[in-house]
Amino acid sequence: MKVEYLNPFIHATRNVLETMARTKLTTQKPYLKEGATTYGDVTGIIGMASEVVEGSMTISFPSACILQIVSRMLKEAPKSAINHEIVDAVGEITNMICGGAKAEFSLLGLNFNLATPTMVTGKGLEIHHHASEPIIVLPFQADCGTFVLEANLANKK
Amino acid sequence: MKVEYLNPFIHATRNVLETMARTKLTTQKPYLKEGATTYGDVTGIIGMASEVVEGSMTISFPSACILQIVSRMLKEAPKSAINHEIVDAVGEITNMICGGAKAEFSLLGLNFNLATPTMVTGKGLEIHHHASEPIIVLPFQADCGTFVLEANLANKK
Repeated sequence: MKVEYLNPFIHATRNVLETMARTKLTTQKPYLKEGATTYGDVTGIIGMASEVVEGSMTISFPSACILQIVSRMLKEAPKSAINHEIVDAVGEITNMICGGAKAEFSLLGLNFNLATPTMVTGKGLEIHHHASEPIIVLPFQADCGTFVLEANLANKK
Repeated sequence: MKVEYLNPFIHATRNVLETMARTKLTTQKPYLKEGATTYGDVTGIIGMASEVVEGSMTISFPSACILQIVSRMLKEAPKSAINHEIVDAVGEITNMICGGAKAEFSLLGLNFNLATPTMVTGKGLEIHHHASEPIIVLPFQADCGTFVLEANLANKK
């Protein structure tokens, strides 16, 4: 993926988490994904598609971190474990972040539509992207822990 | 999801598996998804998106079944376990089936683009669709076992 394609995802992640969950994020150094093991306990997956580009974005949260974030979003006490409400919230967060990135890409003249998010939970699972190029991992540090976003967006062949 | 939206996915699945892997399929009775546990050991996930519709499709295979199918596709002896090659093949199969469905939907006047497939492996994981409507599960019976496709495609609100 082109390095300049990273910024819309970084900006949207910071913006959504700060606006919706009053959670400030520090961006850590991006790195290339090696292997396929996911970082977190709950992962949102969303597709991006147009006539000219295709891609997917995943965002993966450790339990402790997402329970805190959703608690702030809903202004409720944190749940004790990942339940349906948390999974739904991860779907919403995934949608909002990718929607924010889409809006910034649109200003750069790159237009695409979003698919419906899918959320995966489970320990030790592996998530593989069907991409010919290396996947870039963007780690974000919050007060409640670190989570990662993986983005994969490229012109169609 | 509208019931008439099922057929393109059924046709494409039968067509791809029969053409690419000489595997005949019997369609079993569709049912509504309850809970979130996946059926299989390896699952392909792909997004569909346009200005008017959004959706996602998952296809989930038990190990024994996908090892046999990929062996037939590649005309090689079956692998003993799910490895990178099998996961890649599931990405290809996911792409081809959703591409076939897309072509049939296009003839019905419903156009969308495909996102990049994501593949998930792991035992006991749960896959949730971010959809307001119930998810329909389509089971397919092959000589090597049963696998399921879940589709979710709806007009944007």
